[in-house]
Parts: sequence; C-alpha cells; structure tokens
Amino acid sequence: MASAVNHVVTGPGIRTGRLLRLHPDRFFDPDPAIRRAAREIYDGIRDLPLICPHGHVEASMLADDTPFPEPASLLIIPDHYILRMLYSQGVPLEDLGIPSRDGTPVELDARRIWQRVCEKWYLFRGTPSGAWLTHELYELFGVREQLDGDTAQRIYDEIAERLSSPEFKPRTLFEQFGIEILATTDAATDGLASHEKIRASDWTYGRNRVVPTFRPDALFRIALPTWSSEVATLEKLVGGSIASCDMLVSALADRRRAFKALGGMATDHGVVEPYTAALSPQAADRLFQRARKGDASADDQRQFEAHMLMEMARLSCEDGLVMQLHAGSLRDHNPAVGARFGPDKGGDIPIAAEFTRNLRPLLATYGNDPRFSLVLFTLDESTYSRELAPLAGHYPAVRLGPPWWFSDSLEGMKRFREQVSETAGIYNTAGFNDDTRAFCSIPARHDLARRVDANWLGGLVARHVIDMAEAREMARALTTDLARETYRFPQPADA
Amino acid sequence: MASAVNHVVTGPGIRTGRLLRLHPDRFFDPDPAIRRAAREIYDGIRDLPLICPHGHVEASMLADDTPFPEPASLLIIPDHYILRMLYSQGVPLEDLGIPSRDGTPVELDARRIWQRVCEKWYLFRGTPSGAWLTHELYELFGVREQLDGDTAQRIYDEIAERLSSPEFKPRTLFEQFGIEILATTDAATDGLASHEKIRASDWTYGRNRVVPTFRPDALFRIALPTWSSEVATLEKLVGGSIASCDMLVSALADRRRAFKALGGMATDHGVVEPYTAALSPQAADRLFQRARKGDASADDQRQFEAHMLMEMARLSCEDGLVMQLHAGSLRDHNPAVGARFGPDKGGDIPIAAEFTRNLRPLLATYGNDPRFSLVLFTLDESTYSRELAPLAGHYPAVRLGPPWWFSDSLEGMKRFREQVSETAGIYNTAGFNDDTRAFCSIPARHDLARRVDANWLGGLVARHVIDMAEAREMARALTTDLARETYRFPQPADA
Amino acid sequence: MASAVNHVVTGPGIRTGRLLRLHPDRFFDPDPAIRRAAREIYDGIRDLPLICPHGHVEASMLADDTPFPEPASLLIIPDHYILRMLYSQGVPLEDLGIPSRDGTPVELDARRIWQRVCEKWYLFRGTPSGAWLTHELYELFGVREQLDGDTAQRIYDEIAERLSSPEFKPRTLFEQFGIEILATTDAATDGLASHEKIRASDWTYGRNRVVPTFRPDALFRIALPTWSSEVATLEKLVGGSIASCDMLVSALADRRRAFKALGGMATDHGVVEPYTAALSPQAADRLFQRARKGDASADDQRQFEAHMLMEMARLSCEDGLVMQLHAGSLRDHNPAVGARFGPDKGGDIPIAAEFTRNLRPLLATYGNDPRFSLVLFTLDESTYSRELAPLAGHYPAVRLGPPWWFSDSLEGMKRFREQVSETAGIYNTAGFNDDTRAFCSIPARHDLARRVDANWLGGLVARHVIDMAEAREMARALTTDLARETYRFPQPADA
Repeated sequence: MASAVNHVVTGPGIRTGRLLRLHPDRFFDPDPAIRRAAREIYDGIRDLPLICPHGHVEASMLADDTPFPEPASLLIIPDHYILRMLYSQGVPLEDLGIPSRDGTPVELDARRIWQRVCEKWYLFRGTPSGAWLTHELYELFGVREQLDGDTAQRIYDEIAERLSSPEFKPRTLFEQFGIEILATTDAATDGLASHEKIRASDWTYGRNRVVPTFRPDALFRIALPTWSSEVATLEKLVGGSIASCDMLVSALADRRRAFKALGGMATDHGVVEPYTAALSPQAADRLFQRARKGDASADDQRQFEAHMLMEMARLSCEDGLVMQLHAGSLRDHNPAVGARFGPDKGGDIPIAAEFTRNLRPLLATYGNDPRFSLVLFTLDESTYSRELAPLAGHYPAVRLGPPWWFSDSLEGMKRFREQVSETAGIYNTAGFNDDTRAFCSIPARHDLARRVDANWLGGLVARHVIDMAEAREMARALTTDLARETYRFPQPADA
Repeated sequence: MASAVNHVVTGPGIRTGRLLRLHPDRFFDPDPAIRRAAREIYDGIRDLPLICPHGHVEASMLADDTPFPEPASLLIIPDHYILRMLYSQGVPLEDLGIPSRDGTPVELDARRIWQRVCEKWYLFRGTPSGAWLTHELYELFGVREQLDGDTAQRIYDEIAERLSSPEFKPRTLFEQFGIEILATTDAATDGLASHEKIRASDWTYGRNRVVPTFRPDALFRIALPTWSSEVATLEKLVGGSIASCDMLVSALADRRRAFKALGGMATDHGVVEPYTAALSPQAADRLFQRARKGDASADDQRQFEAHMLMEMARLSCEDGLVMQLHAGSLRDHNPAVGARFGPDKGGDIPIAAEFTRNLRPLLATYGNDPRFSLVLFTLDESTYSRELAPLAGHYPAVRLGPPWWFSDSLEGMKRFREQVSETAGIYNTAGFNDDTRAFCSIPARHDLARRVDANWLGGLVARHVIDMAEAREMARALTTDLARETYRFPQPADA
Repeated sequence: MASAVNHVVTGPGIRTGRLLRLHPDRFFDPDPAIRRAAREIYDGIRDLPLICPHGHVEASMLADDTPFPEPASLLIIPDHYILRMLYSQGVPLEDLGIPSRDGTPVELDARRIWQRVCEKWYLFRGTPSGAWLTHELYELFGVREQLDGDTAQRIYDEIAERLSSPEFKPRTLFEQFGIEILATTDAATDGLASHEKIRASDWTYGRNRVVPTFRPDALFRIALPTWSSEVATLEKLVGGSIASCDMLVSALADRRRAFKALGGMATDHGVVEPYTAALSPQAADRLFQRARKGDASADDQRQFEAHMLMEMARLSCEDGLVMQLHAGSLRDHNPAVGARFGPDKGGDIPIAAEFTRNLRPLLATYGNDPRFSLVLFTLDESTYSRELAPLAGHYPAVRLGPPWWFSDSLEGMKRFREQVSETAGIYNTAGFNDDTRAFCSIPARHDLARRVDANWLGGLVARHVIDMAEAREMARALTTDLARETYRFPQPADA
C-alpha cells in the first residue's frame, strides 16, 4: 500500500489568505450574447425547488435529525470523489481517517485530516468537487477565504461553529434548501425503519418528501458469497422461505409494494453491462438452485441478472415503479484498497458499454408499454449519440438520466446536451438528479447543473436555434418538470 | 403496442400565434469575429448549385411530375425523423396515419394528423428536424406563424393552397432549388423505368441531372427469406438464370453497366458492420449454393457479404463507379413496430463500428488503386478521429462521407469537422449530401450544412489558423467541388 | 501501387506570393475575455525551457553535430505526417524520394520533391503539420512567403542558405531552442554509442541534457521472424547467452542499468492493446522456449508481451525508471506500402483500446507502489473520460501522457483537457512532450501546446472556474513542472 509517492509536490505557490469568491456569472460563457441570455434563463430557474429523484443520502440522517459532526467527518471522509483524487496524488487513505477493515491504524485527529486536505486543495482546481465545495463553503458556511494549508484551521473553526448551531440540523437544512422531494437508495432487504420513522414523525414539511428507492442488486448476484445471507435477510423480511426463483420474484414484488407504500416511485439497478435476456422459468430456476448450493458461476450470474432485469421491467409495468439502470462501472478495480477499506473508496473504474444489443430483449418486450418507464445512465460517453439518444428518441419507455458520476461536471453536462439533444430532444431526458451522499452539497450540485443548462440554452438562443420564450420553458422543464414527470412525482400543491 | 404514455405533458406553455422567423445569422457563433467571418464565407457559397450525390428521393416523382399531395402526406408521414420523435413521446403511429401491414385501422384524416403533430411540435426544439421544417415552411410555403395546436389548421390551409399551384410541381421545384445533380438510391433489381422516362422526356433542364445509384444489399443477404425472390427478379432483368456465385457477380456487373448508362456514378452498400474478407471462388460458391437451398446461416451471410464487398470494389476499379459504404445501423430494433408498420419507421438503432480491422482486406487489395474511390459513412462518432480520419489521411482511395443520419445536425457536423479535419484535412472528405427522401427539405438541409461549414471556417479564421482567402476556397470545396470530384460528376458547363 | 489518383485537383485558386504571417494571437479564442486571459497566461510560459521527455530525435545527430541536409531531406522525407497526407491525395511515395526496399526507382532530385510538396501544400490547411511547418519556416528560416508552386524554389533557396550557416548546426540549435532536456527513444539492443559520445564530448551545455529511453518492444514480439536476431544482438551486448525467460529478464535489467547510467529516466512500450497478465515463471519460460524453436504463435506473443509488461513494471519499482505505455496503433495496415517502403510511412491506423480490464493485473500489483510511475498514451479518445481519467484519478502510479500522434493538435489537445481534467485534475497528467523525430519542429510543437493550454486555462478564467493566479500556476505546471516531476528529471540549477 502506498505511503507517499516519491514526487516533488507541484502546487501551492500562490500567496495564502486570498478571498474566496463566487462570481455571479460563474460557468457562463464570456461571450456577451450568450452570457446575457444565460443570465436571463438562469434567473428564471435559480430559485425553483430542488427535485432529488436519485441519490444516496441516508434516510437515518433525517429520521434522527442528529446534528452533523465536525467538518472532516461531514465533508471529506464520506466523499469518494475527494478521496480518490487525494489518493491518486499519494495521500494514503489511512492519513485521511478512513476506517480500515484489517485493523490498520488510521488517523483519528479530525483537524490533522482537515489540514492535509487543505494543503492539497489545489488538486481540485477545475474539478466539480472543487466547484461544489467552494459553493458549500461560501453559501452554507459563510467562509470567505480560500482553502489552503494556512487557512485550514481557521476555516475548520468557522465550519465547526456553524455546525453546532440549531439551524444546521438536517431537517432544518432540508427545508432551507427548498427540497421538494428526496429519494434515497435502499437495498431491497432494508426494513425501511428510518423511512417509517420520518413518515410517523411530526415533521410536517418533510414527512412526505423523503422516499425510498428499491435496489435489489445484491439479490441478483448469485455468484457472490454474500448472496445467501442476502436471501436469508429477505426471507425474514417477507416472513417465509425463498426456495425457488418464483418465490424470489414474489418476495421482490412484496418488497416493491412496501417501498411504494412509503412513497417510493422507482427502482434502481447497478450492472457492469446492461445485458438483458428472457430465460424460461425452468432455466431461471436452475440458476437459482445452483446458487442455493453455492455453485453459481460468473456466467450463471450474468444470465440470472439479465433475466431478473426482465422480471423487474415486468413488475414495473404492473406496479408503476420507474426503473433506473446504471451500467458500466467495474467496482473495486483496486483489490488492495478494497481489502483494506471496503467499497466506495474511489477504486471503481468505468468500462465500455453496449446498450443497443443488450437492451433489445427488454425493450422488445416492454419498451412500447405505456405503463413502463426506463431511465438509462452511462459512464461511457461514446454511447450518448450512438446508442442512447437513438433509443430514447424512439422507444416510448426510454428516458435518459443526466450525466452520471465522472460526467456530472461542467464539460460533462455540456457534452451530454450537445450529443443527445439533437436526436432525442430534451423531452426524452429525465432532468437533473444530484446522485450524492453528501447532503450539504445538494444545493451546490443543483445550482451548477442549472447554470450549465442555462448556458447551453443561452448558446442556442444566441445562435438563433431557439428563441428566448422557448429557452425559458425548456429551462423549467430541465430543472423541475422533466424530473417530476419522469419519476411520476405528484405536482406540488403550490406549483 | 403503445397507445399513449402515461406522462404529464411537458410543453407548450407559450402563448400561441408567435411569428415564425429565420434569423439571417442563424447557426453562427455569436462572437463578433467569428460571426463576421462566417457571414462573409457563407455569402460566397449560399447560392452555389445543390450537388446531391446521395439521397432517397423517388425517381418516379420526377418521372411523373405529379403534384405533391396535401401537407401531412408530404411532410409528416414519409419522415422517419419526425415519426420516431413523436412515437418516443407516446404518440401511436396509428394516430399519424402510417399504413399498417396487419390491418390495424389507422387515422385517415390528414387534418387530424397534422393537428396532432403541431400540438407536439415543441418536441423538436433544438433538433435538425425542427430547423429543416422551419426553413421549409418559411422559405417554400411562406408560413409566418409558429406551428402549434392553434395555428395548425391555418398553416395547413396555407401549405395546401401552395401545393395546388403549378410552380409547386416537382420538376419546377427541382429547377427552382438549383439542383445541379440528384442521385437516387435504387435496388440492383430495379428496372430503372423512371430514370429512363426522365432521360427520354422533354424536360431539358433535368433529364441529365437525375441519376441512379446501384444498391445491391438485398442480393447479399443470403440468410433472409426474401433472398431467392430477389435473385429471381435479377434473373428476369438480366435475362438468364443465376446458378452460381460467378453468375451472380456477372449479373451484378451487367446491372452496374445499366445504371452507368443512365448516368449512375456510384454504388451504395448498407451493412451492420464493415467487415470485408476475400473468399476463394469455391468457398464463395459454397455459400451461394447453401443459400439456394435455403440453408444459409447468419454467419454464412456475414461471410458472403464480406466477400461481395470485395467483389464490388473489384468491379468499381473496372467500371469506375464510386463505392459508398454505410455501416453501423441495426435495423428494426423494435419488432412490434416492424411487424405492424414495416421498415424505416424509426426503429433503427446504431451500434459500435470497427473499420480498421474490418476494412483491411479490402483496402490492402484495392486501397492503393488510383481507379478506386470508397466513401465511408458511420453512425459511431468515436471512429471519426480514431479510425476514419487516419484511414482517409493515408489511403488514396478513401474519402469520408459527411455526418450521416443522427449526426447530420449542427453539433454533429461541428464534431465531424473538429474530429476529422486535423488528421485527414478537408480534401479527403466528400462534401455534403442531403441523404433525404423528403424532396422539399433539400434546400433547407444544404443551407444548414453551408452555415455550419461557414461557421467552422469562420472560427478557424478568427483563431488565425487559416486566412480568409483560404477559408473562401475551402468553403467552395466543401460546398460543391469535393462532392463533384469525389463522385466524378462532370463539371457543369457554366462553372 | 498508386501512381496518381484520377481526381480533379481541388485547390490552389488563390493568387500566389501572399505573405506568410504568424499572428501573435493565433490559436486563441476570439472572445475578448478569453483572449485577454490567454495572452496573459501565455506570456508567463512562452519562454520557459523546453522539456522533451519523449521523442524520436536521433542521438547521432547531436553526437556528430553534422550540418543538416537540404530542405526536402530535412523537412519532408522523414515526416510521416506529411507523407501520409500527400499519399492519401494520390502523390506516389516514389515521387517524394522515399527510398524503396525493392529497388523501385524513386525521385532523387530534392528540388523536384520540394516543388511537388509545395504545389500540394494547400492540403495541410487547418492541420497541425501546416501549423508546425509555418512556425518553423517563419521563425527558424525567416521565410515570409506562403508555400505554393510559384514560391517553392525561392523558399528552397532561402532555407538551403540558412542550413549552410554554422548557427544551424544541431547543437547550436539545441541551445538556441532552450531545450532543458531531450530524451531519445532507443531499442533495448542499442549500444548507446551516440549517447556515450555526447557525454564524453566537450559540449558543456548539452552533454547532460540528451538522455536515452529504453524501448524493448522487439524482444517481446516472439512470433516475429526478427525476434531471434534481436535476442542474438542482446546476447552480444550483455556478453552471455540468453536461454531462458529469466535470463532475458536479467539481460533487460542489465540494459536498463546501462540506460540509467547514461541519464535515462524512462522506458517506453508500444503495444497494440494494453493487455497485462502475470504468468507463472514456468508458463513464461514455456513461451520463451517455443519462441526459440520458432514456434511461437500470435497468441503466445500476446501472452508473453502481457507478462513482460508486468516484469517491466516490477523492474521499474526497483530501478525507478518511469514506464511509458503507448497503446492502440495497428502498424503497417497497408501491406503494399510496407513492402516497398518499410515502416513509419503513414500506414499505421489506430484501433479501439481497452485499459480498465487490460491494465487491472498490472495496477493491482504495482499501481499502489510509491516507487512506480506509469504514463499512459492512447489513440482512442473515447477512453479519455471513460477509462484514463478515472484510472489516473485513483491510482497513485498512473499519469496521463499528452494527446498522442493524431490527437496532438489544436482540437485534439482541447478535447483531452476538457475530457480528462474534471476527473483527473491537471496534476495527474504528465505535461507536454513533442514525440517528434523532426528536430527543427520542436519549438513549434511546444509553442502550439503552450498556446492551446493557455487558451484552455483562459477559458476557465473567463468562466470564473479558476482565477488568474491559479491559471498562471497551472500553466507553469503544464509547461514544465509536471513533465519534470513525472519523469523525475532533476530540477534545473537556475530554476
């Protein structure tokens, strides 16, 4: 494991103590015609409510409403975008306080962790992580100095002080952020106690605004050693044994109902490749029985996942849950990091994706069904114009999710709009989602997306592709309407 | 089959009756230096004749010169770009009057079809279909209001009235558009009666300006049930039985001569992948004989197509017909739409393409031959800089066709120029072609391409990459010279 | 073999004798805010020393310091970028004086070669070759007229005259160019006599500034007929027989030490695909023994190369040589050109690349090792955002090399920055290298890269993504610091 890369540090030659600024025209093209149009469009959407149909905030945070911890635990340790960049530049994860699984001692002093991050903060120049945290520091925590080694402890103090005040408790921030609805992502085997607690609480603003999303991936991965314990958990939840593939599907249908009862609108599926295939009931059950004996191979799992995606689409037609598919991440590419620190620590790397052939069985069966809605996400931008826009521009069921993960950035969002919109139009896209586990970054992420969309539309206006009236309406669609419509969220009473 | 997607409609919140405008600077960058240069460059090419070396206009239209039908049948029903977008947003093809193959009743009232399209016209914001139709409505039909549900019937009336006047007959428009030459696309088994009729007519302007293009795809697809009837048709045309692969090639050579005699300059080949391979005569004939027995497999067909592309290249060296290759569309992805409505209804989806290895056998054999010219088209933009530009920038025989289909758009054309030109230069590209079956959209499509090219060149001038004298000459090359040269069209007398 | 393509020449309709200009703001966006920022940033890096960590200049040129030959032999014949473009437009390589291997007579008159090139010079409009040569002609040779058929001989005379003066000798130019360090690329079997001669010379400025790079590709290609003679050469160099895979690795370690002793800092590896795999010592030796008998298959070679890359990474951890990997070029695509003229004549075509899975074995083993540094180069731009930026943004060992070959261009460099920086940051990239065998083009290539980087940073400043102080520091990093750091070059005394 790395301790420190033998490199001369390139970096902070800039005098310290410089002002932190958020330019009102940030992320807009400097061309006056575009900037003028972008500003006007942005003004019309800046203050719209935040629709958050996909993300990874923990429901327990809002169920318990306990105050946030100190700055490093809040802003650094859970953020794999930040961890990966620091690690790539030779900062050991031990030094960042990431809990180890193998007992390796790690840094426990939050101020020292914070100091290290600030000293390397120049690494984030020009990155979305840099833009998001800058927004957060400025708008939420009132910081007015740039992060670096010299300002680190002062800024730590400022943030820590804010965090201790009552208006920084999760529910208060939720309301202050103007969140209209927030979907969490929850394992199919999650009992949803936190969601029940929120619903049963006296939090009038929020109790119908936090909804679960059904994610059954672990139950489809029949070649993993964890599979049988996942099934056992599911058995307990549904109160009965699961001895066949049919029984598994029934149990999943049951859990989907439970999610829906708590406001859930969607399912989510993470796959390496978006392969779908219909197996006969007998063939599917043979795979299931092999898995029960612990004999399922990697290829068995591939077939089983492909079949279960078909089953999920079928159930979506019945229960109306929107189906989300996130394809193309090869998880835990770096075994040393995975073994010591577990998943979601930056070691996931995308691979090339193929949607046209892989999705054909599923779309041939369900793609024309008016009850079905499928939202596609990719990490392979070469599929934008080649596969995804043509699929969304033909199948009634298909919508394109916003740029995901590594592509959720200024240039990434620009490429998405440019490569997708001419074939699919904007009305086959699903609006924005922040996809974050960093609750405090939600406003920053939505603001960045709104600015980029306003700027893209402003460019179309300046080139006379659309007019300003159209741009304003399109901006509203991209900001709120398309997300509400795609995920079938109720229109808010005040809209 | 979908009847209507269960979605809240997102859309036309804009007051109706707004003016339809064509801004004189549309599609140009707003930066003053670029716009000034783009305008100047565009002025030099705007009125050049239209060279149309590849497209899908029916020769019969010009042979018979019958007036165009009413607006919906002219502008909507034959346009799969429009159909696919409407279908993707839940409009059943039945409601658009697409004739069904299975007897399903479809809308017959043209005004109701037109109304439905206009109500959903906002879907085309920012799309090339939107830009083309706007140009057509404004310039050709004199429409001055934007399309929407309220203006639909008024605009229908305006267009219908124009269509009934004599200056809107096909031949008159052909001359008015300034078409220098128009190539149709015709099956190898087409008797070319319409082309003969045009040549024999008293239409002095057009009789040497409409030429056929030889497309033998159906005869190479030996695994399809239609293959034997295709061969039977060919046998009748050439007047002899076709009992071997050699005899098939002879018959094809014969048909190529017939096409050439009617002015044909090129062949065209549509393939899923651009795979080429030389088989021995014996091996090729074995596949042919298997096909005759109805036993050819999908892989047999793949080999046979690969071999026949080699044969076509060989014949091109002999007879001088330019070879066009369109690779990467997976036809009829949506079986339900295909079964009910047939091909070309929007259900074609691209797949990833590979040219470097697939074309090697063909280019190794014919790529250095000065008699041979091969024009490549792709739907996979990732091949632009990786494969196509390097191939065109090396092999004397290779030229790159303009952005095809989903890529024939503002941003698509820009990406093509940016990703191809630095390696291949512009002189290894084939100029523009409109690739359309929508005759009335031809001027709109050429105008859009000229504007995008002028703007791209204007950007190079503004960045001092080229000077204005070079830009003007390059613009002329992109607009007319390269198409004439690539397709070996005679220089016009007045040029 | 082609003699001339049967095409109407498209081209030089522009009056001749026009002034050659180098606009001071060339390659900058015309937008005033961006241009102002770009200029200011460029001013801070324009005169920094040239760091050349990867290229193909011959060490013998500097060892012998013999004057350069006449213009065609200096500027045209060795430049495969220029040859490929001319060949693609029907100019036979014979007419350009490329020595043939099969005795085919070729043009020997340098003035006629030069004339032909100048007549076709318009082909290079908008290409990097055009930009580089224009810079070279203007800045180095004082040419003030544009190249064309009429000016060709005058310009030939001007250049020839300059070349004959003492200040145009290689070592003098090396100093005048401000080259801080220049790495050549040398076969593992190269005795490095020229490098020894430079070190032993009285050339004080340069004797520690020209260093070799270790390239052992030929010894890994066990299926090629040349392999055994390569091994024989290596045996002579290391003074002992090489009868096993272990002995081969030992000999390579020995040669690596010899390279390092002469200042070498890096190895370089050219592969079709970046496939890596650890074989057992027994399995590796079985392949080696099969190769000794001349029985190694293409697949054997694939496995052997994959294994040897692992071995090279292991040795890099030990001896500290930086490992460079250039993946994705299919060499000698055009067999006719290869047979007559040999390699590096323009017939190399890229293929799609896959890094995520292919590099996993190597990165799992060495990617976290702080002693290891791996610089990746690709010709497949679709891997930038999908694979390369995520890999570099996670693994401490990985850095991304600058846009390579076909991508080393204005638009290519812009795409690289836009697609890589948001995920990897700039600090996981390796700075610029010119990768050239054309010594006189080195300043032009660095200047172009500096302008493009300054313009990219200027765009970020104008959009308020970074501020000017950050931009200036980032520009310095991209220009000198990152190359020095990545390749572990000593900081210059005067820095």
